[in-house]
Amino acid sequence: MPHWTALVTVLAVLFYFYTGVRVLPARRKYNVLAPAISGNPDFERVFRVQMNTLEWMPIFLPLLWLFAVYVGDRSAAVLGLIWIAGRIYYMVSYSQAADRRGPGFSVQALVCGVLAIGALAGIVTQIAHGG
Amino acid sequence: MPHWTALVTVLAVLFYFYTGVRVLPARRKYNVLAPAISGNPDFERVFRVQMNTLEWMPIFLPLLWLFAVYVGDRSAAVLGLIWIAGRIYYMVSYSQAADRRGPGFSVQALVCGVLAIGALAGIVTQIAHGG
Amino acid sequence: MPHWTALVTVLAVLFYFYTGVRVLPARRKYNVLAPAISGNPDFERVFRVQMNTLEWMPIFLPLLWLFAVYVGDRSAAVLGLIWIAGRIYYMVSYSQAADRRGPGFSVQALVCGVLAIGALAGIVTQIAHGG
Repeated sequence: MPHWTALVTVLAVLFYFYTGVRVLPARRKYNVLAPAISGNPDFERVFRVQMNTLEWMPIFLPLLWLFAVYVGDRSAAVLGLIWIAGRIYYMVSYSQAADRRGPGFSVQALVCGVLAIGALAGIVTQIAHGG
Repeated sequence: MPHWTALVTVLAVLFYFYTGVRVLPARRKYNVLAPAISGNPDFERVFRVQMNTLEWMPIFLPLLWLFAVYVGDRSAAVLGLIWIAGRIYYMVSYSQAADRRGPGFSVQALVCGVLAIGALAGIVTQIAHGG
Repeated sequence: MPHWTALVTVLAVLFYFYTGVRVLPARRKYNVLAPAISGNPDFERVFRVQMNTLEWMPIFLPLLWLFAVYVGDRSAAVLGLIWIAGRIYYMVSYSQAADRRGPGFSVQALVCGVLAIGALAGIVTQIAHGG
């Protein structure tokens, strides 16, 4: 088992969980009661951080694990930590203003690009060698 | 392979699928036509059950499998069944009224907490022992 | 490792990523600024394609991999390719009109049904044989 990737996976899941935890006090603060998810831009930005992180989980997690298996555990774990850092920066800056969400988003997207290219190269190499 | 965890995974996926199946008749009943997802609180509660279950899938499934690998198959499967039971209770009670969604939600969240702590302890132990 | 399933997984993730990429120009074209996700039916259809694909990722990916492990790598990969094809047809037709989204949706749902039945049969067989 790629232990370091497993560890970073738990950290990424806990971070994602935290983006959802933030929605409940935002509901109270901006008076947007469940099941509504719109009505106040300040609430919607907090909600969209959770949603956007959710949207990227099925990109990040499969690519992270394929990279860990086909390239390496420790390099996957380091890339995973950079992804989490980009996500934290995205969360903090998007919560301030919608037009500040770019840099953090780009970092985490770039990490997923590297994971995809590495995984793809590793898989194709294995198939080509009849592995 | 942790067969019991695999079995519970299929059950959890089928349950999650069912939360989405319920949205279609709710669209007809409350006259909320696709692509709209708001406009009637009764529809929105049915839709939010699906969405909230979706939001928790990237928390539940990775933690369930890391727990299965690092702690044990059968204990993971039992926790997975409790998670599904909490989710079913959440679905039934949230569909009745938004303020009844608490207990079922807490059960499934608690299960994820136990899965996270178990997985984390197992991973750290393996890394510490140079596993 | 089931290499062909790994390859199809990367393709499915890249396709899903693309359904999200389409949302940004749609925001500009139909003037729906972030964090809003509604206000224009043409935008909402593009957004719903991404959301619906997201909703199915936690169904498709776990079943695909359980099928690959318990039934076979190459049959899983072929079914995965049919799923992607159904999803592409769904994306193109839903973007044109909401009532055209049926056929592509049915194809991808049918594939998930086959994956579920195959995985379930394989898992139960293994447990019954004390595997």
